[in-house]
Amino acid sequence: MSEDKLTPRKEDFSEWYNQIVLRAEMADYAPVRGCMVVRPYGWALWENIQQALDRRFKATGHVNAAFPLFIPMSFLEKEKEHVKGFSPELAVVTIGGGEKLEEPLVVRPTSETIIGYMYSKWIKSYRDLPVLINQWGNVVRWELRTRLFLRTLEFYWQEGHTAHASEQEAREETRRMLDVYADFALNEAAVPVIEGIKSQSEKFAGASMSLSIEAMMGDTRALQAGTSHFLGQNFAKAFNIQFLDPSNELQLAWTTSWGFSTRFIGAIIMTHGDDQGLILPPRLAPLQVVLVPIYKNDAERGGVMPVVERIARELAAFRLKVDDRTEVTPGFKFNDWEMRGVPLRIEIGPKDVEKGTVAVARRDIPGKAGKAFLPQENLAANVERLLAEIQVSMLQTATAFRDSHIFDPKNYAELTEVVQNGWAFSWWCEEDACETKVKEDTKATIRCIPFDQPDGTGHCIVCGKEAKRKVYFAKAY
Amino acid sequence: MSEDKLTPRKEDFSEWYNQIVLRAEMADYAPVRGCMVVRPYGWALWENIQQALDRRFKATGHVNAAFPLFIPMSFLEKEKEHVKGFSPELAVVTIGGGEKLEEPLVVRPTSETIIGYMYSKWIKSYRDLPVLINQWGNVVRWELRTRLFLRTLEFYWQEGHTAHASEQEAREETRRMLDVYADFALNEAAVPVIEGIKSQSEKFAGASMSLSIEAMMGDTRALQAGTSHFLGQNFAKAFNIQFLDPSNELQLAWTTSWGFSTRFIGAIIMTHGDDQGLILPPRLAPLQVVLVPIYKNDAERGGVMPVVERIARELAAFRLKVDDRTEVTPGFKFNDWEMRGVPLRIEIGPKDVEKGTVAVARRDIPGKAGKAFLPQENLAANVERLLAEIQVSMLQTATAFRDSHIFDPKNYAELTEVVQNGWAFSWWCEEDACETKVKEDTKATIRCIPFDQPDGTGHCIVCGKEAKRKVYFAKAY
Repeated sequence: MSEDKLTPRKEDFSEWYNQIVLRAEMADYAPVRGCMVVRPYGWALWENIQQALDRRFKATGHVNAAFPLFIPMSFLEKEKEHVKGFSPELAVVTIGGGEKLEEPLVVRPTSETIIGYMYSKWIKSYRDLPVLINQWGNVVRWELRTRLFLRTLEFYWQEGHTAHASEQEAREETRRMLDVYADFALNEAAVPVIEGIKSQSEKFAGASMSLSIEAMMGDTRALQAGTSHFLGQNFAKAFNIQFLDPSNELQLAWTTSWGFSTRFIGAIIMTHGDDQGLILPPRLAPLQVVLVPIYKNDAERGGVMPVVERIARELAAFRLKVDDRTEVTPGFKFNDWEMRGVPLRIEIGPKDVEKGTVAVARRDIPGKAGKAFLPQENLAANVERLLAEIQVSMLQTATAFRDSHIFDPKNYAELTEVVQNGWAFSWWCEEDACETKVKEDTKATIRCIPFDQPDGTGHCIVCGKEAKRKVYFAKAY
Repeated sequence: MSEDKLTPRKEDFSEWYNQIVLRAEMADYAPVRGCMVVRPYGWALWENIQQALDRRFKATGHVNAAFPLFIPMSFLEKEKEHVKGFSPELAVVTIGGGEKLEEPLVVRPTSETIIGYMYSKWIKSYRDLPVLINQWGNVVRWELRTRLFLRTLEFYWQEGHTAHASEQEAREETRRMLDVYADFALNEAAVPVIEGIKSQSEKFAGASMSLSIEAMMGDTRALQAGTSHFLGQNFAKAFNIQFLDPSNELQLAWTTSWGFSTRFIGAIIMTHGDDQGLILPPRLAPLQVVLVPIYKNDAERGGVMPVVERIARELAAFRLKVDDRTEVTPGFKFNDWEMRGVPLRIEIGPKDVEKGTVAVARRDIPGKAGKAFLPQENLAANVERLLAEIQVSMLQTATAFRDSHIFDPKNYAELTEVVQNGWAFSWWCEEDACETKVKEDTKATIRCIPFDQPDGTGHCIVCGKEAKRKVYFAKAY
């Protein structure tokens, strides 16, 4: 890690982001263009995200499985919208075992097609439904402009794929899983999100309806943090997913898919980070507490280390590290762990040993305001309380920031201004033309039509026609 | 699930294996030749394997990370033996985003090269060592003859890659991780394994020395169940992994790699399964207990189900399923769960409700000998005891079977006979020619030179020359 200061967020948010990812050793550039290496610290965060999501998937009746990486090119062509959306982004295997393949294989960009094919084999009767399967894995989309975590050729994610006997059940599933994502974002990652419906132009290729959670980053741009798609019978038709209903009639199944990726690590960084580095929510942080011994010489070290080690044992229930490096100064260590966003730092020096105290510093409150002295006695209970407070406070801070950057512009001119540094929450007539105009004039897009709507109707912020629903316009990642 | 009986193991072991994998819904054939779909029941077993191994990796100081799926073709060419070994097995991406790539990308068959490249960037000083990283993921090897789990084009595994400052440390790591695999196999999977060194002809392409654990399957063929490689400085030289030692001199690092794959699911099936289906070790089984209510009519059902539900709550600490399907008979359910290898079945009927008992059936002991009546009171303690007994008994059975099929042939003629239905443990002069002769005459290969050696020396079973070590000859998967 370099001791140089990060480029401040206000100066160049994009550069600040890149520096933080590299210096906190979250990820690195791979030798293949657009690919990333997720380093151990970044992967530990992803593992905590996976566990928190997987617990929720299992609690809602889902099971995990693994489908192949390779998909025959002809499979993608079976669903017209799907192939149109994905074909520009494909990585294609044309040689296997030294020979040219008869049919090229696509490296999966998403798995609706191959899973649809398997479901058509497995599903025979209404008794086989619903099928509620999730897969954790890697996918590849040949993106031209890439950013670590936010958009990489290969990324890691989960993709849920479910099949149901009725439209209503599939629609309920689509919404249920979006709610799972929102609950995770709010309660584990302290990232406030808005749930809603994507406009027709922004929906998933092959879906009847796409839902998303949208988060506001520290530069006020929006980030789509998870999506859940109602696929209607589109893929059931393409892959012949049929079942005998209780009256022995053949019916087409209704399917859904939903995904959440390593992109969300970017969302955590850009929601919470500051000019000193990452700030990680305690519930997901790979390290929740770092213990830094403070001493000037071997004699002081001899007095301090036994206390540090005893306290480390007392705090064994937390994800904790003792930083006993001797080749760097305490100041270097403070900067290092601040860069890595560890929620709580505990310092123990000779005076603390004498007084039976420790000094604690909250990562979420910089400077003196975040510091306190605590007794060594009952420290575990105090640490637990502090971590819970940090978790709550991070969500409050992020929510307050977001809410203060959502505007209700009075007219179109004002809309074009507010989306330069915030989101506009405005009435929309639901015509493509108005959506396109905003995009062309401002680069802002409709992030979602939120479920949470005001009463009554209004006038489209673009054309003035009657509008039934309000939408969020924002520039997005 | 079909109600047809499995082909008996003695009649056609290979067919028995294929049927069990499909009927227990462990895996299915994918539409791409040689690829598999790991179905939820198979994946749940893999998740339990992953957790048991990952716990051991972390306890020995390792961290997880993720490296790219795609490797530039030129990387493989940097280590001569490595490229020679892997180039016939590669899947190659030649098209990305609709355009022909300047340099083809290999879908990783293993990750020594790309990880070596990253290590050369990250490692600067002896203070950066050791680097102890593991990766869970998928790899692709273009195999011609494939079998579900045992050999598939794409498979799932973990690959550990470590770098060290000294040869001794790297050698110790190589052995430590083999011991971790052996400990897992023995204590979690109830699969007895023999640890040893691979002969030169069987070692990993690019390694200085390969270690393996070898298990005996139910048809007496050997299965290499995990490998750990001492790579010397071969990859450090190829990728320039250098560090400044404490005297500020540049040194090449010493590296290791070690891997364990979904192939092991095949080992579990073929070590423990019988003509009724799978038998899964309780510590890894996705379901440890199945509860089957027994009733003839709705009145009986009304009496039985509340007791079944109460007992299910009392046994919540176990991985348990209540099979309350009404469309199939208890007999069908028994067969179904036997096929899936659930270690313990508990039946509860009207008489049990009356007497305060349950009937239990152990999967590892077929027929009446494995059945017992137990009081409902304190059932959790009895279930815990029974599962522990099953775990121990499965290891004993597998070990006894293996030991009774390891022979010490007196001469070469006898060796060629015993390897038709067992392993030969024989002296070997360590010459390639003798190894090759056995292979050509019998199809048996040297599985390993075990660490556990008798005292003294002997005479090579093939040529009669003096030999220092005994080896296992066996036909292998």
